[in-house]
Amino acid sequence: MVKVNENYLKLKAGYLFPEISKRVQNYTQSNPREDIIKLGIGDVTEPLPKACRDAMCKAINEMGTNEGFRGYGPEQGYPWLREKISENDFISRGCKITPDEIFVSDGSKCDSSNILDILGHDNSIAVTDPVYPVYVDSNVMTGRTGESLQNGTYKGLIYLAINENNNFFPEIPLNKVDILYLCFPNNPTGATITKEELKKWVNYANQNKSLILFDAAYEAFIQDKEIPHSIYEIEGAKDCAIEFRSFSKNAGFTGVRCAYTVIPRNLSGINSKSEKVNIWSLWNRRQSTKFNGVSYIVQRGAEAVYSSEGKKEVKGLIDFYMENAKIMKNQLQKAGFIVYGGKNAPYVWLKVPDQMTSWDFFDYLLDKTSVVGTPGSGFGLSGEGYFRLSAFNTRKNVIDAMERIINI
Amino acid sequence: MVKVNENYLKLKAGYLFPEISKRVQNYTQSNPREDIIKLGIGDVTEPLPKACRDAMCKAINEMGTNEGFRGYGPEQGYPWLREKISENDFISRGCKITPDEIFVSDGSKCDSSNILDILGHDNSIAVTDPVYPVYVDSNVMTGRTGESLQNGTYKGLIYLAINENNNFFPEIPLNKVDILYLCFPNNPTGATITKEELKKWVNYANQNKSLILFDAAYEAFIQDKEIPHSIYEIEGAKDCAIEFRSFSKNAGFTGVRCAYTVIPRNLSGINSKSEKVNIWSLWNRRQSTKFNGVSYIVQRGAEAVYSSEGKKEVKGLIDFYMENAKIMKNQLQKAGFIVYGGKNAPYVWLKVPDQMTSWDFFDYLLDKTSVVGTPGSGFGLSGEGYFRLSAFNTRKNVIDAMERIINI
Repeated sequence: MVKVNENYLKLKAGYLFPEISKRVQNYTQSNPREDIIKLGIGDVTEPLPKACRDAMCKAINEMGTNEGFRGYGPEQGYPWLREKISENDFISRGCKITPDEIFVSDGSKCDSSNILDILGHDNSIAVTDPVYPVYVDSNVMTGRTGESLQNGTYKGLIYLAINENNNFFPEIPLNKVDILYLCFPNNPTGATITKEELKKWVNYANQNKSLILFDAAYEAFIQDKEIPHSIYEIEGAKDCAIEFRSFSKNAGFTGVRCAYTVIPRNLSGINSKSEKVNIWSLWNRRQSTKFNGVSYIVQRGAEAVYSSEGKKEVKGLIDFYMENAKIMKNQLQKAGFIVYGGKNAPYVWLKVPDQMTSWDFFDYLLDKTSVVGTPGSGFGLSGEGYFRLSAFNTRKNVIDAMERIINI
Repeated sequence: MVKVNENYLKLKAGYLFPEISKRVQNYTQSNPREDIIKLGIGDVTEPLPKACRDAMCKAINEMGTNEGFRGYGPEQGYPWLREKISENDFISRGCKITPDEIFVSDGSKCDSSNILDILGHDNSIAVTDPVYPVYVDSNVMTGRTGESLQNGTYKGLIYLAINENNNFFPEIPLNKVDILYLCFPNNPTGATITKEELKKWVNYANQNKSLILFDAAYEAFIQDKEIPHSIYEIEGAKDCAIEFRSFSKNAGFTGVRCAYTVIPRNLSGINSKSEKVNIWSLWNRRQSTKFNGVSYIVQRGAEAVYSSEGKKEVKGLIDFYMENAKIMKNQLQKAGFIVYGGKNAPYVWLKVPDQMTSWDFFDYLLDKTSVVGTPGSGFGLSGEGYFRLSAFNTRKNVIDAMERIINI
């Protein structure tokens, strides 16, 4: 009889966002008020850049001709897109990332969970706490953890707290850890990391021959010149780090689907005989066998992000959302909340008042203001007592939501 | 130190198609002749249907407005697409497949390999031989097989030969097998299965509580009314089968990327305590956690496949490729080849003459005619001595290729 992968049965309740949807749905059913403002999921709201739309329409027209039709493309992405990425996102910042080190995909959520396919099951793994739930859940689903504990953590995972006590810098583990997930600018806390701090992690990883999985999905929101956009701005990172990037949040591609992963050509791990194995080759094989590349049309849209018109439009989007973040931060502070993030990241991370739990505050805020946020505890134990508000919304909604919160 | 998944190291050489590319590249470098005709990879060549192009352009325009912009969609696909699929591909054929049993994805290659995520590691697994290499490789990569043997098979997998001796009907295993991969119309042999034969497999699976992974990517090419398009045309299949479908070959979406997988709501497996576990829920959880849905633009394109204009255009494409297949079959038979397939499938499966191996014939054909095909042995041990030619090409290329082969 067919056996299932029972590691799935260890997963707690639903994935965070479906749980939020359910509560909002219940609320809507019992409340005729329909002006709910959703600052929960980090999903963009502004129209797609014209440069991207034009490029995609052009690609579609090409596909209607015999000469311009394109079937299967390279599983790794088209060379012209990989070249643009290399040049604009890396070479221009002094990071020597070549086009063949860039693997175009349909999303960072996929990449950051699929990456486990090529890694052994006997690695020790550390995540920050709070953390983007996909890192944890994908480890649980592949049997890399034990059961979940009463407090919501999983046996076998190492949790590195990021909170007020350490000024939102996770502390470097005292023992050897094989795989480390880092995300900066951070989701959900909005915290950033300096080059000096990141250098310590790279050094740790190189000393211990660990692998850093660096999620830079929010790099476009960085305003301060000193904050690194890529881990490859740190010397030695090409020997120890994989980086995830996405077009979702900069160019508004959450519904279009395009992202990429950087795997340095010489990055290596070991097999059970302690022999070196090249990690780039494993990922290349994984993608060739289990993936068929991103839509040609979408890749043309992503390419347009790097045109001069595209860059201008993307800057406009970033500025718009960061102005939202600023308004939120100011207003919430005025209302007496203790607020973090929102400066180089599109997330505001606020301290829940009056000893409420995060979910209490979620229900309270929904009930009093019809504003939806994300409970910090949904991102991990150390997120308890915090609450995430996303700057991805229309200006009107952001202003209205803040009005309502101020006037509770 | 970070350990890799060393199961990848068991994989033989490259995946079949990259190996073909390499040989063609070498040939091109030493032969100035540039009129290579590729009948190797099963990749479509004709322009994308106008109905699909129009729908996608419309979707892109919507995305340029505040009202029409779409961010993250449901991970399972938009309801309007799932409803169209349910109605047109299943209900209309008497199969009770509801929209919630349909999971839209970016490709069948992904789905048919990702499906292993939710299945246990201790299942016995059977594949046909020859077979689409992805089924085998994805099992190897996830550690479900032993090492590869001298003859190219993997320890631990059960191979069911399909060849002339059994008239291209795989024989039902004598022992219990937990997971069975079936693909009809078959890639690579072009063989089809009757309802009566398929019924035997469904009965076997239900008796043994096995799971059938049924790949129906080529169903659109079926010409005979009696041949089933879906395994769900067989009574009892909803209790034992998952079906993979794709827009790649019918609507020419190989470069656009859209497919879907059907998981019946009540399909179940067991955990290690022999308790029933619902498989639909596991896949739903997998997709929610590790996938972010297919591009909104692409889903609108797929929806247009079911419009009356779209249906007409898809029929035109199928007729076109099947006329190619007919020409190929007739010409090759005239030239004295023994030829299978090509009647309800876009693949012609020919017997290699003169005791050559499949790769010998590949090199011979490339050298003498500049025509590229796929060596049968690339699909498995029992494919040795056969050769696959794809009907996916322009009429001119098909006619020219056949001319050249006839005149060797």
